[in-house]
Amino acid sequence: MRDIFELRDVDGAGRIGELDVPRAGVTVETPALLPVINPHIRTIEPSTLEADFGAEILITNGYIFYTSEEYREQALDEGLHELLDFSGAIMTDSGSFQLSEYGEISVTNEEILRFQADIGSDIGTPVDIPTPPDVSREQAEEELATTQERLEAAEDVDVGDMLVNAPVQGSTYTDLRTEAAEHAYGTGLDVFPVGAVVPMMNNYRYADMVEVVLAAKRGLGADAPVHLFGAGHPMMFALAVAAGCDLFDSAAYALYARDDRYLTISGTEHLDELDYLPCSCPVCAEHTPDELRAADERHREELLARHNLHVSYQELRTVKQAIRDGELMELVERRARSHPAMADGYKALLDGAGQLERQDPVSKGSFFYLSPQSARRPEVARHHDRLDRLPVEADRVLLSEGGDNRRFDETWRLQPPFGPFPSALSESYPVSAEFPERFDREAYEAAAEGVCRLVEANPDTEFAVAHWQWPESALAALPESVETLELGEDSENPVED
Amino acid sequence: MRDIFELRDVDGAGRIGELDVPRAGVTVETPALLPVINPHIRTIEPSTLEADFGAEILITNGYIFYTSEEYREQALDEGLHELLDFSGAIMTDSGSFQLSEYGEISVTNEEILRFQADIGSDIGTPVDIPTPPDVSREQAEEELATTQERLEAAEDVDVGDMLVNAPVQGSTYTDLRTEAAEHAYGTGLDVFPVGAVVPMMNNYRYADMVEVVLAAKRGLGADAPVHLFGAGHPMMFALAVAAGCDLFDSAAYALYARDDRYLTISGTEHLDELDYLPCSCPVCAEHTPDELRAADERHREELLARHNLHVSYQELRTVKQAIRDGELMELVERRARSHPAMADGYKALLDGAGQLERQDPVSKGSFFYLSPQSARRPEVARHHDRLDRLPVEADRVLLSEGGDNRRFDETWRLQPPFGPFPSALSESYPVSAEFPERFDREAYEAAAEGVCRLVEANPDTEFAVAHWQWPESALAALPESVETLELGEDSENPVED
Repeated sequence: MRDIFELRDVDGAGRIGELDVPRAGVTVETPALLPVINPHIRTIEPSTLEADFGAEILITNGYIFYTSEEYREQALDEGLHELLDFSGAIMTDSGSFQLSEYGEISVTNEEILRFQADIGSDIGTPVDIPTPPDVSREQAEEELATTQERLEAAEDVDVGDMLVNAPVQGSTYTDLRTEAAEHAYGTGLDVFPVGAVVPMMNNYRYADMVEVVLAAKRGLGADAPVHLFGAGHPMMFALAVAAGCDLFDSAAYALYARDDRYLTISGTEHLDELDYLPCSCPVCAEHTPDELRAADERHREELLARHNLHVSYQELRTVKQAIRDGELMELVERRARSHPAMADGYKALLDGAGQLERQDPVSKGSFFYLSPQSARRPEVARHHDRLDRLPVEADRVLLSEGGDNRRFDETWRLQPPFGPFPSALSESYPVSAEFPERFDREAYEAAAEGVCRLVEANPDTEFAVAHWQWPESALAALPESVETLELGEDSENPVED
Repeated sequence: MRDIFELRDVDGAGRIGELDVPRAGVTVETPALLPVINPHIRTIEPSTLEADFGAEILITNGYIFYTSEEYREQALDEGLHELLDFSGAIMTDSGSFQLSEYGEISVTNEEILRFQADIGSDIGTPVDIPTPPDVSREQAEEELATTQERLEAAEDVDVGDMLVNAPVQGSTYTDLRTEAAEHAYGTGLDVFPVGAVVPMMNNYRYADMVEVVLAAKRGLGADAPVHLFGAGHPMMFALAVAAGCDLFDSAAYALYARDDRYLTISGTEHLDELDYLPCSCPVCAEHTPDELRAADERHREELLARHNLHVSYQELRTVKQAIRDGELMELVERRARSHPAMADGYKALLDGAGQLERQDPVSKGSFFYLSPQSARRPEVARHHDRLDRLPVEADRVLLSEGGDNRRFDETWRLQPPFGPFPSALSESYPVSAEFPERFDREAYEAAAEGVCRLVEANPDTEFAVAHWQWPESALAALPESVETLELGEDSENPVED
């Protein structure tokens, strides 16, 4: 068990954790956002991040300091904490990004790791190879082999009590991502960034992003803190946390602000196109769009960066509160309605429902049926699994959406999308949930699937289903052996005979 | 044409308007929120509403002033604007609420109207009868007749240039609501509150609320400003605006604050149950939940009321921006994921799609396919109507999700959920929209419906459909005369023959 990361609460694969950063002497609550600080362009001062936004951690680029005539010596003399005036945890990147952009960097893996330790970084990074999506398998494997050598070499560098990132690469090959994660988890390194996802996110490939994260998670233990490297847009925080990510870094807050772009939880707006500010942060409560447009460039950039940070931290608090309430999947479902690509990401998350299900504690307290996709929630799959195990003692059992019928020895309730359950469980989660008045077909079909599971597990019992206007597709999905009774408009009871 | 209300932008039945309030000498932009001010308990001072929240209008209760030993004379002497220290528009209620709560009030319709005018109200209200939901039809009709007499009597009261509300009642009988609206619109009165919806909203009956509003809208001209009386929870603003409401009043911001309840766009939280504040308003950016809990009662009430107002005004700005962007239905769809009852309300709104469609300008710029319900959007119905009119000149037409085929004289594109369209329209709204990679069955079935419309309108043309793995239910919905070609995994072209 890694002793630097402790889980405080979980909901599906999403979790609230505490990351101990020994060199900084601080504990960072996750999910956490690491604002990116470029020492040359401090849009928002690190001390302001700490005071006004409660930032416990930030990230800056060790390679920029390594190559900077202006800051290199100062960083070595004073250390990053004094230079940046920040008392929280500081993570540094290694120059891998520059490597991927410019093809080469002028430092070795060991040198840059030692340099990061020398300037007082709390979490350093080796020089991994961020393989982009969709390259040949050969390239992905070759570059992954190099990354793995670098991680192994990093283990042998003496960096004191600085934590070290172990990036997980593998391009869009999910089996390589899993293999890479297993290897990284097997090293003595500490934090696990899922790398090279930025090109996916820039192209709205959220489904691919989720598949890559889920693949990496399959190779990591539950005690591995996972960083979604380069992911700074609040619109995907909920989705990424639900897939199991704990750390995010945002350069977007500053880069977008420079470009007059305004982040929201459902996308990005350009200031020029806003007639109203759809936010209540201190910046938006005190300004109109016209006032922001009229501000001078430097001030406007700062105001927009402040807004972008406010909405980002707000979304992380919203995600954490949803985890506490056991409603993370409801939040993801809502966020999935912001863009078709987000809906694809949510579908990919549900495709991994089996994996999520294993991590989801049974005792969580909330299930809302909100759309056909709710029929694919882990809770439904888990209820179906339970139907294989629930004891059926009677010879003739009615599964009813309405009342009882004397012809049967026993009546179970029938609740779309779950299917049948004994009356004794009526008050138990999840069948105790609130449901809409009308369901879509997917809910009835999922309930029919539950009936099938129960019938298969109890071949000697005679079952009937009393339903209230189920659609044909759901009735057709019932086992042939099951009698069906239609409940009437006026009566909640099947006709007695 | 009523000359006090002018539309500035519309999206479906939702609109941005300007309400001229002559007596106040102000123009109120709608959708607008009217915070309720109880003169005895001013949780937030009206001058603060104006300065910190940009409130252009508020509502207070004329009957409270009428019966108040403390304020009656002062109101008559100074007028409401000076007494409340508010320079925007002031609407007053008449005591109808007290009538419905306590069975009687000690003032006549004419007296209270004249009193409202005397104390300087800008928009007054007659004493209507707020008939609750689900009463007998007889009671609803009788009480509506009384309300209608009161409206007619109100026309004859000399109230100077005070505007007068003409409430629309009728309980849950939609035909009565339409009739009531036609009658109210036929009077010389000015603003049209849809009344007695609070019991529906308190019981999460958002579908009934939408049906009642749509019924009232059928009896009102587009130039009628519509007030959803008693609706102050931001979670339903988008839905209500999309149904055609322009004004909302909120007592919730203060009443909920007194009770430590915290409004969000997706529901209500109790402060005791919050570990994180899912908001970035000035209150939430500067406090943790523990700090709020530790504040003394009076201060906590004010802080929570401020938060509740911030989130309410934020949501109205979000709604207005969505109208400007032509994305109101996307916003409603997102909000519908907050609670099963909201999903029911959204379904009721879509059931009225025909009514919305007539009001929706064809030129709007955005359509996102986000869920099976998107297949029921007005844009899809409108495209199907258009298919009856599009000229088909060729004898054999292929409707294809992929490429062409030489056997056919002409190829049209085929795009779920819209169905077929000529290639020339590819760049036109709405088929130019962004679509997810995978659709649900409803999208394919809607596309099949479009094919049916085209085939029916062109009985002499031979049609074939080249599809990419459509589900059986969609293929079964195609006309029998239509040949189907399945597009392959590797090729975008139907097999040439």
